Amino acid sequence: MTAGRLCPVPEPWTRVAGPPPSRREDPPLTEITRTVHRHTGHFLEDFRPGDVFRHKGGKTVTEGLFTTFTEFSMTSNPLSKNARYARAYGFDGLVCPPGLAMLVAFSQTVEDVSENARTNREYIDMRFGAPLYVGDTVEVETKVLSVVPHRKIENLGIVHVQSTARKNVGAPDEGVVMTWQRRVDVFKRDPDADLQEGEARPDAVDCELWLPPYDEKVDYASMAHLSSGHSYFEDFEPGTRIEHSRGRTMTSEHIHLTAVLDNTSQVHCNQFMIDQDPARYVGGQLIIFGGIPFTLSLGLSCPDVGDNALGDIVYPTGRHTAPLFAGDTVFAATEIHGVRDLPGRPDLGVVETKLLGHKFVRTTDEPVDPDAPSGWGKVQIFELERHLAVKRRSHYA
Amino acid sequence: MTAGRLCPVPEPWTRVAGPPPSRREDPPLTEITRTVHRHTGHFLEDFRPGDVFRHKGGKTVTEGLFTTFTEFSMTSNPLSKNARYARAYGFDGLVCPPGLAMLVAFSQTVEDVSENARTNREYIDMRFGAPLYVGDTVEVETKVLSVVPHRKIENLGIVHVQSTARKNVGAPDEGVVMTWQRRVDVFKRDPDADLQEGEARPDAVDCELWLPPYDEKVDYASMAHLSSGHSYFEDFEPGTRIEHSRGRTMTSEHIHLTAVLDNTSQVHCNQFMIDQDPARYVGGQLIIFGGIPFTLSLGLSCPDVGDNALGDIVYPTGRHTAPLFAGDTVFAATEIHGVRDLPGRPDLGVVETKLLGHKFVRTTDEPVDPDAPSGWGKVQIFELERHLAVKRRSHYA
Amino acid sequence: MTAGRLCPVPEPWTRVAGPPPSRREDPPLTEITRTVHRHTGHFLEDFRPGDVFRHKGGKTVTEGLFTTFTEFSMTSNPLSKNARYARAYGFDGLVCPPGLAMLVAFSQTVEDVSENARTNREYIDMRFGAPLYVGDTVEVETKVLSVVPHRKIENLGIVHVQSTARKNVGAPDEGVVMTWQRRVDVFKRDPDADLQEGEARPDAVDCELWLPPYDEKVDYASMAHLSSGHSYFEDFEPGTRIEHSRGRTMTSEHIHLTAVLDNTSQVHCNQFMIDQDPARYVGGQLIIFGGIPFTLSLGLSCPDVGDNALGDIVYPTGRHTAPLFAGDTVFAATEIHGVRDLPGRPDLGVVETKLLGHKFVRTTDEPVDPDAPSGWGKVQIFELERHLAVKRRSHYA
Repeated sequence: MTAGRLCPVPEPWTRVAGPPPSRREDPPLTEITRTVHRHTGHFLEDFRPGDVFRHKGGKTVTEGLFTTFTEFSMTSNPLSKNARYARAYGFDGLVCPPGLAMLVAFSQTVEDVSENARTNREYIDMRFGAPLYVGDTVEVETKVLSVVPHRKIENLGIVHVQSTARKNVGAPDEGVVMTWQRRVDVFKRDPDADLQEGEARPDAVDCELWLPPYDEKVDYASMAHLSSGHSYFEDFEPGTRIEHSRGRTMTSEHIHLTAVLDNTSQVHCNQFMIDQDPARYVGGQLIIFGGIPFTLSLGLSCPDVGDNALGDIVYPTGRHTAPLFAGDTVFAATEIHGVRDLPGRPDLGVVETKLLGHKFVRTTDEPVDPDAPSGWGKVQIFELERHLAVKRRSHYA
Repeated sequence: MTAGRLCPVPEPWTRVAGPPPSRREDPPLTEITRTVHRHTGHFLEDFRPGDVFRHKGGKTVTEGLFTTFTEFSMTSNPLSKNARYARAYGFDGLVCPPGLAMLVAFSQTVEDVSENARTNREYIDMRFGAPLYVGDTVEVETKVLSVVPHRKIENLGIVHVQSTARKNVGAPDEGVVMTWQRRVDVFKRDPDADLQEGEARPDAVDCELWLPPYDEKVDYASMAHLSSGHSYFEDFEPGTRIEHSRGRTMTSEHIHLTAVLDNTSQVHCNQFMIDQDPARYVGGQLIIFGGIPFTLSLGLSCPDVGDNALGDIVYPTGRHTAPLFAGDTVFAATEIHGVRDLPGRPDLGVVETKLLGHKFVRTTDEPVDPDAPSGWGKVQIFELERHLAVKRRSHYA
Repeated sequence: MTAGRLCPVPEPWTRVAGPPPSRREDPPLTEITRTVHRHTGHFLEDFRPGDVFRHKGGKTVTEGLFTTFTEFSMTSNPLSKNARYARAYGFDGLVCPPGLAMLVAFSQTVEDVSENARTNREYIDMRFGAPLYVGDTVEVETKVLSVVPHRKIENLGIVHVQSTARKNVGAPDEGVVMTWQRRVDVFKRDPDADLQEGEARPDAVDCELWLPPYDEKVDYASMAHLSSGHSYFEDFEPGTRIEHSRGRTMTSEHIHLTAVLDNTSQVHCNQFMIDQDPARYVGGQLIIFGGIPFTLSLGLSCPDVGDNALGDIVYPTGRHTAPLFAGDTVFAATEIHGVRDLPGRPDLGVVETKLLGHKFVRTTDEPVDPDAPSGWGKVQIFELERHLAVKRRSHYA
């Protein structure tokens, strides 16, 4: 050990020394005379239509974050797995799949909007814009659109908000990554507080999916074996329901995953809180953050629906229809509702779908559930309208 | 929130807008009139000797993937932990340990080769070539060498394949990372289908371990404290068995790890499938992907065997001899079978070993297992012949 | 598959081929005639005052390591989450939070110092210096200061050491990242061995917190919404105890986390060892590595205490007061003991605190614990004196 070796700080940095070590036997610590309980998140009466929250933190997408969430959900689109493929397609590098963009952007809003929520009621008009890459920093703002008391439950109300996620604020590659609305059931802090009812108009946010050009000089066909062969635009026939083959069992990993996303809602990670009053919480156990089945359903459907998408355009509506717990196995299906041309882009088409997530639970119900093996019942957990921009085989394979 | 702020896309990118939000109250969704069940992976009758699968996806090694798998397995070779050491040795940066290279390359072949397999029977002639770095993209091809019906089990057969993993295809730093053969027991889809028997010759793949030069200008000795002091070439004596001291308990983390590797085999991650018919599956529970004990055995042996290796050359044979489950604790041992000079490289030698993985299970058998504490039996789970290129103390310490 | 395609190695690299594949049916393997049991780590009698361990490995901070540990602990300071914010403040990029720097540096010392320890008794005078970034490589040395037999337990003694972590040794951006002392209870290997008692003086290590300058040209206020609004220097009043609102349940994830840190102590990851003799180990189960509650307590307190810190200066003392197990939920509180100016830096002040971690356990004790809900008792698990350099609202918001 080179004692006392000089490590000069770079100019104009400064240095600050702590107290000498002997200090720790010094005078006793200050007497503590008051205790402050910090609480985080807003309650129903705190929301005022027209107000805007500029959320804390922001989040830079690292290669750690990218891999954890792209892969836990079994995403298979090579744009998110194979950098040489992504670059050949005109992207700067590996592209965050839409589920990861959603997880990063949405989680930034949790402390302000839904830390004290009972449930997330509905996603509305979730639109994608600029591609999100490793190294990009996402920052999010949320505008309150309306606050309405719950018709039946006294201490509850419905908050309707619009959130927008931008990347690299102030830098040349700034862009809107996503914008969406959601409605969420939020608890009152004070049962007697008056609500700030009313309505504000959503902002007209410039958020349209950025698409790299079709480049005739690129030999796309030479890379066609890297994506699934049955998920080009020509393959989708309205009226079809595709049952995706894979299932994925969730474990207590969800606590870690949720923390990594900055989602601070205590119903996902504080078992002690649940244990004190299990009856108050759904299922009497930690509930898995909705962003997990959202992203996992997208991932499980990817080989059949998303492998040849250049991007997701919009999710007009979405909702969670049942909770997910550690130990449950998630499956997904996709309904094809429409196909249409994309003006100006003969190489692409739009596929309009409904993505469905489900699980099975043991049951003794009669008659037997026709969609489940004997002794089991099928439980729908998630649904999402989803429009994708999909490559045509004629141009890419 | 700056409403409608313009975020121009870079030329020549285009943009695509979704439908207006009002659309979601529009005409009802298309009626679903047919359901398609997607299945993935090939069955026994699909394999034809001489055919080549160019596997989907490909995988770019991110810093997230690198850290998860290098560290979960307790790898201790500084080439995979300390970038200044790796660079001083002539590598471009942190080097993927052989277990990670194997996991990445092997997993790419699962969907096509073994998604519908019963067991992986044998690894044969697994050879390493170019070093794999963070940022490299791996793509893999597999050639079918033979298909043989199982002698006893009717719906089963043995598929013999040769796989080769390349990195950065088409780029100047392209290289073969690994090539290997394996034999795997695959189920038939249709019991009446004819097999495509026969034999194809393995390709002569240019895959030899790349070694950085010994550079007399580098002060290797100044870094010698960073690797273990008892694992130089001079330390290995044929006829010795080394019991490695550490154990590592596996948890349900294996489900997440396996997903991150793109290994889609359902016996590792679909608990619902197991619960429907536990008797059909080994142990009636999720089985841990063989790549996990493979890599973990390499990691546990690293302080004693791998710390001063510049690379693994070849694994002539390898096999899993018992399954591994969540809750099991993995241990490893290494037998030293031979040592030899490396022509042209007086600074290195080749150590020929057999790597063994084992666990202990509770038992009431008599007599007591001499290799296990009372009440426990030792179960061999993995064995791998392994040849390494190891530094000589004379040149490096 | 392009058989035999030439992949020339870059000059002056060489290549080494393994034996031909046929070899694997060759002569039988060497007979194993002796077995060596490798043990790692030092025992009490191995420590000699004045000796220095230069620890193995070293560790490069990857984006995978960074994200896993910054986020699992719910750190909220934007310096560790938002690269554009960190750069605007004068840092090179995302800054490792102090808990991560501590985990990386401390873990490097485990094999040599505490692999055979019973408990870590005390942290003393833990000081921070240069900021730690993604891409930096940490290497650590430890000097033995004293060895003292335990007063009551015969096979045990107290080892007092001083450790220092440097980054990028030999490179222009080299710097001391941390230095600290600790006292640890270590077992003897041989009950009859003599101890090497005595005392060595700690080295005078040049380790003072590096602080980027206050730059009047930077619009700090435009970023003030990204950190919490109630944790500026002006907000801290001595005599206050802040109960932080969030809890975080730890799962068996701790085994994986500990492996990723290179902490090889078997009491954290070897369930088989515990199962053989549960009574010997605290709680008869795997115990969570102390670095986990250390870091988690820092993270849980971050919104209220650390969000506007430019760095932690020193932890004069710290200790673990009860073990943590999988399933426990961790909470934290901070006592404010003093505030003072920072000479030469009117934009900053020093806040002197005591960080406390606790959990709750079920109990039937009477009378009821006033700090816990009925049926539960509060258990203090960790305490740390902590001095931070905190921004003044007057200059930054």
